[in-house]
Amino acid sequence: MIYLDNAATTFPKPLSVLRAQSIGMTQYGGNPGRGGHRFSLRAGEQIYHVRKKAAALFKTTPEQVVFTNNCTTALNMAIKGLLKPESHVVCSCLDHNAVYRPLYRLKEAGLIDFDIAPVFEDDPEKTFRAFVRLVRPNTRMVVCTHASNVSGHILPVEQIGSFCKDNDVVFILDAAQTAGIIPVDFQHIQADAICVPGHKGLYGPTGTGMLLLSVEAPLPQTIIEGGTGSASAQASQPDFLPDRLESGTLNTSGILALGAGIDFIQKNAETILRQEETLCRITEQELSRIPKVSICPHGKSRVPIFSFSIAGIHSEEVAAYLNQHGFALRGGLHCAPLAHEHYQTAEQGLVRFSPSCFTTQQECRQFISCVRNLVKNMNRKLELHA
Amino acid sequence: MIYLDNAATTFPKPLSVLRAQSIGMTQYGGNPGRGGHRFSLRAGEQIYHVRKKAAALFKTTPEQVVFTNNCTTALNMAIKGLLKPESHVVCSCLDHNAVYRPLYRLKEAGLIDFDIAPVFEDDPEKTFRAFVRLVRPNTRMVVCTHASNVSGHILPVEQIGSFCKDNDVVFILDAAQTAGIIPVDFQHIQADAICVPGHKGLYGPTGTGMLLLSVEAPLPQTIIEGGTGSASAQASQPDFLPDRLESGTLNTSGILALGAGIDFIQKNAETILRQEETLCRITEQELSRIPKVSICPHGKSRVPIFSFSIAGIHSEEVAAYLNQHGFALRGGLHCAPLAHEHYQTAEQGLVRFSPSCFTTQQECRQFISCVRNLVKNMNRKLELHA
Repeated sequence: MIYLDNAATTFPKPLSVLRAQSIGMTQYGGNPGRGGHRFSLRAGEQIYHVRKKAAALFKTTPEQVVFTNNCTTALNMAIKGLLKPESHVVCSCLDHNAVYRPLYRLKEAGLIDFDIAPVFEDDPEKTFRAFVRLVRPNTRMVVCTHASNVSGHILPVEQIGSFCKDNDVVFILDAAQTAGIIPVDFQHIQADAICVPGHKGLYGPTGTGMLLLSVEAPLPQTIIEGGTGSASAQASQPDFLPDRLESGTLNTSGILALGAGIDFIQKNAETILRQEETLCRITEQELSRIPKVSICPHGKSRVPIFSFSIAGIHSEEVAAYLNQHGFALRGGLHCAPLAHEHYQTAEQGLVRFSPSCFTTQQECRQFISCVRNLVKNMNRKLELHA
Repeated sequence: MIYLDNAATTFPKPLSVLRAQSIGMTQYGGNPGRGGHRFSLRAGEQIYHVRKKAAALFKTTPEQVVFTNNCTTALNMAIKGLLKPESHVVCSCLDHNAVYRPLYRLKEAGLIDFDIAPVFEDDPEKTFRAFVRLVRPNTRMVVCTHASNVSGHILPVEQIGSFCKDNDVVFILDAAQTAGIIPVDFQHIQADAICVPGHKGLYGPTGTGMLLLSVEAPLPQTIIEGGTGSASAQASQPDFLPDRLESGTLNTSGILALGAGIDFIQKNAETILRQEETLCRITEQELSRIPKVSICPHGKSRVPIFSFSIAGIHSEEVAAYLNQHGFALRGGLHCAPLAHEHYQTAEQGLVRFSPSCFTTQQECRQFISCVRNLVKNMNRKLELHA
């Protein structure tokens, strides 16, 4: 079975990640931040090392690194924590349900209003202007995906961030598909918060994610409160980070494994990106030559994933065929209804191709040939029916 | 180093738990519920097995089992999800900050009011009446700990649950210190929600927890929304469980390891409890004979943990001494300011003793002897100064 669904979660993980997770369980089993004994302190120290690594990667301070269970929680914490009631928000038409559903819920509750900026794949400047056009006097937040999880298209987030900075608008970046793949940090992008999964481009395990705050970000309100192992006598949540946003026991082995994932991509980032881009380019080129195959538009600037459809077959049928023939790709909708509306694929859905650093050219060639066969068989069937 | 802080997190974990975690990473690496290919489906199936195990243990249906990253998140989801604005809540004076801080935050925001029921260690009936006395016409929720994380004292939650049921009050149980240790389920306790950590008495890894809902519980509102891999075209969160409360990618390897933990305690529950009770009784008896040592009161009904103090030394100094001599116990406050107020230990704190199924009598004897030496040394110092 060849796994080509790395945009959902990378698999396999580097050996160093597996090792770190196992070491976390066997050697750092104390509850970090809960007690002054060696077990607790050592677990806390190890977690702090990962905090430092993440801070270095995203160019912030270790205190502004908040560990979460996934990117979705990080986005909820950022959006709900940094919004003031009765304000207006702008997001993009490529946003994932992890952004769209929280905004929709807040709007339904009558707390906020939001608008959805269109994206122009061939004209980043026009995309940027579309965002700006939607900003109103009470716009307090822009939140958008760095790159679409459907098409891979990269949004002009440097421009958007810089505009937000100048206009005192909070900017939250959903880096679910970019963290670990292309440079994402507070030096390049003037965001207040960057939300990332641990288990995709950073090669950590599922069950990990991070909310990264810039050093200048306002202090978020909490959506979850509880024991932090700090200021325990106090009924209110601590007003310092990361404790304020990290209630309850942390996922030590997951975080340590994520740390190993960060080391892995720090060492290999450029090579990985080049390799994945090559695989993507070859596969896309070959696929686009097959009759009836359409590639979802993504403009010039994209991360190494793409989606496609085959005229006359539902994307889930395509994915099922591929699965039967040994290829794991996701079909249907990709938890991004806005994007499917934008690409007019809400009915048929799309099949997404996403390699990782462990994907080989040989595997991609096998995959291309499988799609070719599918279309051939389809044509044969049609001829028989004709 | 002898680890006696199992109420913070159990350590070590059973080998089967370590194995399951590792298998989760290497064999079930797809993103569960995200795609119809084999990798995703197999991960989803494995998670469903654990859901069934948890449902059997707590006597509910698999759909009412919601996986979270810890007990604190489960409590926040239950409290905020089942509360209506402007209602009144009753909690107990032994509640952890995981209950107290969310309630305090809601009260500060002007959304609810709450009262704290006193606990009478020697008279469960009186404790029950104290809860009842605080219930008002607009009381919509009772939330309380099953057993204190400080003293181990067990609250009369069967009576409280039954009262809540009869009076149409939502009852949320914080089973952080009881799940896996003593019977906790919806058959015995008429709760709407039971919140548990995965990494304490259930012997799973940190980073896991569960919100268990009774089959009759009202459908909670969400505090986190996002992609669920279901009803993707819909902007609102799904209205069915568990999807409604499980946004974003789940912690597959953690959940599989938690499943192994549940198997482990299902097989050994009675033996474990008997063994831990014996260790606790012996240690407590011996400690209580040492001059200057006071045991925190817990009544007859308690889980196998207890806390103690030594007159004239701060609990954190005691814990530091024990740590130097090879024993890992937590001193200070235990994220439960209400409990410390109740026990009048807010200043000095307490040292908590909590064995696991891996703790031996020999280790407890060494520990007792260490406390004896500490008091002896203390007396000698005092004599020298006199």
